[in-house]
Amino acid sequence: MARTPGSVTRATASATANAVAGAGDLLSLLRDGEPRTRSELAAVTGLARSTVTQRVDALLASGLLAPAGAAVSTGGRPPVRFAFNPGARVTFAADLGATHARFAVTDLAGRVLEEHREDLDIALGPDHVLDRVVTVGERLLDHSGREASELLGVGLGLPGPVEHSAGRPVNPPIMPGWDGFDVQGHLTQRLDAPVLVDNDVNIMALGEHFATWPDEQHLLFIKVATGIGCGIISDGHVHRGAQGAAGDLGHVQLAREEQVLCRCGNVGCLEAVASGAAVARRLQEQGIDASSALDVVELARAGSVPAIQLIREAGRDIGEVLAAVVNLLNPSVIVIGGSLGLVGDHLIAGIREVIYRRSLPLATQHLRIVSSRTGDRAGILGAAVMVIDHGLAPSRVDARVNGT
Amino acid sequence: MARTPGSVTRATASATANAVAGAGDLLSLLRDGEPRTRSELAAVTGLARSTVTQRVDALLASGLLAPAGAAVSTGGRPPVRFAFNPGARVTFAADLGATHARFAVTDLAGRVLEEHREDLDIALGPDHVLDRVVTVGERLLDHSGREASELLGVGLGLPGPVEHSAGRPVNPPIMPGWDGFDVQGHLTQRLDAPVLVDNDVNIMALGEHFATWPDEQHLLFIKVATGIGCGIISDGHVHRGAQGAAGDLGHVQLAREEQVLCRCGNVGCLEAVASGAAVARRLQEQGIDASSALDVVELARAGSVPAIQLIREAGRDIGEVLAAVVNLLNPSVIVIGGSLGLVGDHLIAGIREVIYRRSLPLATQHLRIVSSRTGDRAGILGAAVMVIDHGLAPSRVDARVNGT
Repeated sequence: MARTPGSVTRATASATANAVAGAGDLLSLLRDGEPRTRSELAAVTGLARSTVTQRVDALLASGLLAPAGAAVSTGGRPPVRFAFNPGARVTFAADLGATHARFAVTDLAGRVLEEHREDLDIALGPDHVLDRVVTVGERLLDHSGREASELLGVGLGLPGPVEHSAGRPVNPPIMPGWDGFDVQGHLTQRLDAPVLVDNDVNIMALGEHFATWPDEQHLLFIKVATGIGCGIISDGHVHRGAQGAAGDLGHVQLAREEQVLCRCGNVGCLEAVASGAAVARRLQEQGIDASSALDVVELARAGSVPAIQLIREAGRDIGEVLAAVVNLLNPSVIVIGGSLGLVGDHLIAGIREVIYRRSLPLATQHLRIVSSRTGDRAGILGAAVMVIDHGLAPSRVDARVNGT
Repeated sequence: MARTPGSVTRATASATANAVAGAGDLLSLLRDGEPRTRSELAAVTGLARSTVTQRVDALLASGLLAPAGAAVSTGGRPPVRFAFNPGARVTFAADLGATHARFAVTDLAGRVLEEHREDLDIALGPDHVLDRVVTVGERLLDHSGREASELLGVGLGLPGPVEHSAGRPVNPPIMPGWDGFDVQGHLTQRLDAPVLVDNDVNIMALGEHFATWPDEQHLLFIKVATGIGCGIISDGHVHRGAQGAAGDLGHVQLAREEQVLCRCGNVGCLEAVASGAAVARRLQEQGIDASSALDVVELARAGSVPAIQLIREAGRDIGEVLAAVVNLLNPSVIVIGGSLGLVGDHLIAGIREVIYRRSLPLATQHLRIVSSRTGDRAGILGAAVMVIDHGLAPSRVDARVNGT
């Protein structure tokens, strides 16, 4: 008995659903933004003209497709072109950090329509924090002139391990009160829209991939801030792993004699020596006033030589772990982000130095190691893209245009 | 402008091609082996009955589909059921190691029809070795009563880094004369069939996944023999990376003070201390006669305590690197194979010990660490599966049934 490839699912579809099954595939084709006539769609897809008309009508009724001007005609009434309508729905994206939150309402092409940032302490717990998420979401929707009913979905990034399929944090170290909390269920009820929850670094990888490197199939996003995390794009998709716990780079053990105790209980973890918190601790040991990753960033910006030296040293330690990851995954792009990654080239210089020395020549031949270009917007972009890719998947579009 | 998802490609299809475009999708559905009538296929796919008939006829003509007995009728002539015909074509699979080769002819369900093993030194170079591959291939086809024209394709595993898309080895350390050799072109010309070439550990991962763990989406296959390599299944697919160089675990640096020089030029690589070759060297240092991984295996089989101790120690070193990989990729299954992995539980015991101590709880919660069940057949099974998945991809089936 041969395997069934995962791409084919069996629909227990009603006669009505059958009539427009495939509308989602048609929309996927049109998501490149190019307008096409019915005849062009028939030629490209190989579908019968009547089938195309049926599917186009269903997509027009849903608003996801819109007329986009007439094509040039050789005589008679010019045929109408249709294009994907990114304004048909909106997403609400939220990226929660340890102490700071970013929110946005975007259209279906990932364009930010409204945006808001504020200090928000994740340690206040899920009830308080998610209340705030709902309030800001409703306000941003209002400001953008859209209704809650127009939400394609809500995307939320959290600063800790998340079981993506269940939408719950799992043993998050800096999120007291959140362990196992049903974030997805809670927000779905409050905002009456599909909710997707993921680790903040996964959505950053998604956002950077979408905005800056859409043609690269293998990308790593490394966030270096209070902690250290990694988002993996494998063959164009986020690699989340079996429990959604993939990308934990912070607790990999370094190849060095110094044995610093880590908050995870092991010794010699990368995070214990190379995170923003670890650099701050080392500066304190030198009598310099620094108690957080943000203090380190400010010192480096002000030209503090000890801070710059320690950031470069942290880069070398991160590079040592990444050298192994490069051998293992052979990415074409490594994007360095997070507050420490975005302050000058100090961190990235240390990372490059070690990767090019330690990784195999074949794996580094075409490797680019670059700073994040989306900066602190990577997270909200990625949260929006997560919602768009999920909500516009062909099977979901088929269900939507059938009203099921 | 929104992205176009990768799943939709634009066909510059002729009118004829259009007529049966989608036959490949229909075949994908039928690859589960279950027979279905035309009506059932129409109900499941939502396609018009006439379209189903057209596609079924095209697949029947190609031989990929065959009648499979009549369905129960409520009166009148009972409708015919159709099923995927795994005997329609065959694959030729070859798995070349450093000194040993395995060959098989399989059907399209991956069943081995003919098999052959022999000593074959990869260092004899591509002309000699590929001559032998062609000779054995022709003989096995002959023995199985099939023609070269019935080949869906040829799958070849090589013991070194391979640029999969080009079908060429890249700087393979133990394959003198093979660097950059156009293996794919050479074999395509000689065997007149599509040829796919990959690293031996990638095809082992594919074979083990196919035969033993088809429902797991995240699997690692670790081969421990003369060297150490890793095949990665991510979301059900082989993760090859940007240059096809992914999975190189052997040259990751260990977190220990001992600095053994590796043949790659770096010090402290995993392969320099934990491979079959490294264990043999250590046994020699103790005055025990061992010059290869196979000698180590024989000693362990004979109950040599120093050999067993050193294999377990090698397992701990491999476990240290795998602990980091588990944090990074969160697999649900790690399969241990290769000659050292298959001799008792010594290696796997050492690996388990360190992974469960060093990896994060969430990542090891449901992790299984097991011995290869396909044993030394993982490679030829995987080479066959690689050819089948490639050759039966919907777009290629569409092209085939159209004779393009």
